[in-house]
Amino acid sequence: MAVDKISPKVIERLTKYLRCLENSDGEDYISSKDLADKMGFTAAQVRKDLANFGEFGIRGKGYKVNTLYNDIEKILGINKINNVIIVGFGRLGSALYSESEFTKQRFNVVGIFDNSELKIGKSLKNIEIKNISELSNEISKYSESVDIAILTVPKFVAQEVSELIAESGIKAILNFAPIKLNLPESVVVENIDLYAKLQEINYWKEKILKKAKKKVKKN
Amino acid sequence: MAVDKISPKVIERLTKYLRCLENSDGEDYISSKDLADKMGFTAAQVRKDLANFGEFGIRGKGYKVNTLYNDIEKILGINKINNVIIVGFGRLGSALYSESEFTKQRFNVVGIFDNSELKIGKSLKNIEIKNISELSNEISKYSESVDIAILTVPKFVAQEVSELIAESGIKAILNFAPIKLNLPESVVVENIDLYAKLQEINYWKEKILKKAKKKVKKN
Repeated sequence: MAVDKISPKVIERLTKYLRCLENSDGEDYISSKDLADKMGFTAAQVRKDLANFGEFGIRGKGYKVNTLYNDIEKILGINKINNVIIVGFGRLGSALYSESEFTKQRFNVVGIFDNSELKIGKSLKNIEIKNISELSNEISKYSESVDIAILTVPKFVAQEVSELIAESGIKAILNFAPIKLNLPESVVVENIDLYAKLQEINYWKEKILKKAKKKVKKN
Repeated sequence: MAVDKISPKVIERLTKYLRCLENSDGEDYISSKDLADKMGFTAAQVRKDLANFGEFGIRGKGYKVNTLYNDIEKILGINKINNVIIVGFGRLGSALYSESEFTKQRFNVVGIFDNSELKIGKSLKNIEIKNISELSNEISKYSESVDIAILTVPKFVAQEVSELIAESGIKAILNFAPIKLNLPESVVVENIDLYAKLQEINYWKEKILKKAKKKVKKN
């Protein structure tokens, strides 16, 4: 099946299309060109990406905004609520927990884990903070499955804790620690690496400054 | 010059090489194959990426870990301290500010901005929180340039505030708001979109679960 060969880049772009549709101006239809222009992609790219999953547009009219939004949600499996746990309840973990967008985006935080005696046992909006070492045990008590673990522990324990998560049967980890986790292939890991992003952006910023300097010299 | 045609993907991978070298086992040398294996890339990819910027390896020995690390730092412009401001000092902004890695990674927070009267005027480690509307004015008082603004304001004001940042002359924004910013090309924007990452990872998780189900059926 074609869907089996989807590249990560396609899925990344789907989330961008979604974001774009979400923030659109209230038009009923959007053309692949308009969708592409908003993101700096080409219309061909948009059409090719979507064609991986079926036929969505209407010739001459474009895509129906609501329908395409729902269709992409379905493709990504976010047309239903997905359960999330936060592992590591430091400043970052608790900042993420308090984000109001979570529920809007249909991710439901069902558990919080930390290793600090000061935090374990405390409750936030009906969720009691549990000990990381009890992860497998605690999760087995849930009536529903846990879809994704958000890992916000310090770098030096991230590998160890990620193994506990994998052992508990959770299949997806969103890792904020600036380290590459070594886990079985049956666990998906996505990384959000703030410093890597700062380094990337720094490269492009330096390039812009160099260009500007060259221009000044020429004039 | 070849460097002008570098794709964003190359720069993204450079930051990964850096992370990998940073967490390496203390070996003096590393081969392109070992470096590649650790990240799931190919050795040819690693060599090609680095060849964009010069010659780094020694035939038969590989790359000297320290030297390659320093060379990549130079390429990214992070061999020196870069000044950062945080705009939007809610939970996420303050969580990022308190990250000890910032200074280790040579990013120096020199300013904090918010629009809440409750926060403006308060001081954190010698930095006084200033009003976002005073951004241009305040930044002009700094003796050193500001390299990057980290934008952690709510989504509905992100565009407006990003324009203030651009007007202040800052050339790079790391945007945490789940929205695409419309800014002149002379400003680099990188996005960290937590929900998009959750959506991506959700897709791959669902695929793994489907595969597992198929296997069970076959057996």
